[in-house]
Amino acid sequence: MASLEAKKYGTVNLACNTEDRNHAYVPSQNSLKINNAASYFHYCANNTVYGTAWKYIPDTGRVPLVADMSSNILSEPLDVTKFNLIYAGAQKNIAPAGLTVVIVRDDLPIKPLSTTPTILDYGKMIENDSMTNTPPTFNIYVLGLVLDWIDKQGGLANLAEYNKEKADMIYSFLDNSSFYQTHAEPEARSLMNVTFRTQSDTLDATFVQDAEKEGLINIKGHRVIGGLRASIFNAMPIEGVANLIDFMGKFERRNR
Amino acid sequence: MASLEAKKYGTVNLACNTEDRNHAYVPSQNSLKINNAASYFHYCANNTVYGTAWKYIPDTGRVPLVADMSSNILSEPLDVTKFNLIYAGAQKNIAPAGLTVVIVRDDLPIKPLSTTPTILDYGKMIENDSMTNTPPTFNIYVLGLVLDWIDKQGGLANLAEYNKEKADMIYSFLDNSSFYQTHAEPEARSLMNVTFRTQSDTLDATFVQDAEKEGLINIKGHRVIGGLRASIFNAMPIEGVANLIDFMGKFERRNR
Repeated sequence: MASLEAKKYGTVNLACNTEDRNHAYVPSQNSLKINNAASYFHYCANNTVYGTAWKYIPDTGRVPLVADMSSNILSEPLDVTKFNLIYAGAQKNIAPAGLTVVIVRDDLPIKPLSTTPTILDYGKMIENDSMTNTPPTFNIYVLGLVLDWIDKQGGLANLAEYNKEKADMIYSFLDNSSFYQTHAEPEARSLMNVTFRTQSDTLDATFVQDAEKEGLINIKGHRVIGGLRASIFNAMPIEGVANLIDFMGKFERRNR
Repeated sequence: MASLEAKKYGTVNLACNTEDRNHAYVPSQNSLKINNAASYFHYCANNTVYGTAWKYIPDTGRVPLVADMSSNILSEPLDVTKFNLIYAGAQKNIAPAGLTVVIVRDDLPIKPLSTTPTILDYGKMIENDSMTNTPPTFNIYVLGLVLDWIDKQGGLANLAEYNKEKADMIYSFLDNSSFYQTHAEPEARSLMNVTFRTQSDTLDATFVQDAEKEGLINIKGHRVIGGLRASIFNAMPIEGVANLIDFMGKFERRNR
């Protein structure tokens, strides 16, 4: 999606293409085709649709590194100094939808096109102290509360442990079941979005319906991949994960 | 401002220019220079900086009519059928900042430039049922509550009466005072933003300080015009207006 949008504004070189295994994996550092003349290298660190995540920060040499971290920011500690630009929609781990956080290196040259709308011009945004337009005040307020909450959890290192525990619980259950299949390959599994399926599309649909009756909602997979998806962002407590696993066990016993 | 942004994308014809009297008035229908070949005619129906408002909907013939109603939408009844497109940032009368409402006629041809970002492409936005990106959910929820609240006030006609009463109270007070001067000329006075000043910049600054002590905040005029400004959007009750007038009287007696 990002590459389609980027094509409007310049030449796009695909550094990798994971279509061959339906985007169930993440390319290795060695397989990346990095164009040293590129203005930047862009990747999406966590893919909510396929349930995959990059477990390493790509080394792009002198090519500026840009990451979409919308769905994994604040899920674990991050060395932001490795990046030239990080952007993240707030709606997963930061605040209600309607805010995007952008972290830009001071020395990143910002050269807007003549057709860049002023509100999307990061240079102007920095110049105007993030107030080129009226900023989304309530979302920023909630962002502050969420950061306080993270501090109270003992910070990102603690939160990462908790997130790993939650994800491990589901992946272990899935790996021990012959009824469910995971989509993402083990080395690329997201901590935030667990993609899986039952034995058939019909059974997947029944799963969604039955799960809803137990208060387990939004479990349907993204329309481009189908199947099922458990999103376990920071706000999901371990009890919610336990409830899901309990239900998955019951559903398997009823339907295998 | 809108004309500067529009210049990035096409030729701009200024239909009017109110600089001669420091934007204290609104042009008459007859004085508008309408270019019949224009793709659209754009105006800002209420100017928060100068405290002016258009008291009529411009007749632009066959030229599509586009209005920025960010600061007066929902302040009074509006015949939307006269417009081809209305847009309004939510932050004044609709919901917390971070949402823009766009009302588009079904038959308005939408021809995005090849460089229009997908999230700013109204055609795509309509196609995607306003969910090209994750919409600002909380703001939309509050919008619903605000519309319910307006219904409880007896609808927009009642609210308009109330808004006129509030504005009339301040303007009458200002007109009867030789200490304060209004900025906007009587025929162009905004119901939402009352711009005025005292005898000097120094006294204006004292006014702001003293007002704050009485809980009357955000009374400083916009930096491009200076002076003072009382914003009395829908959320401001008549009691707040009465308090301001009471303070203005006291301030005048102390400082004249």
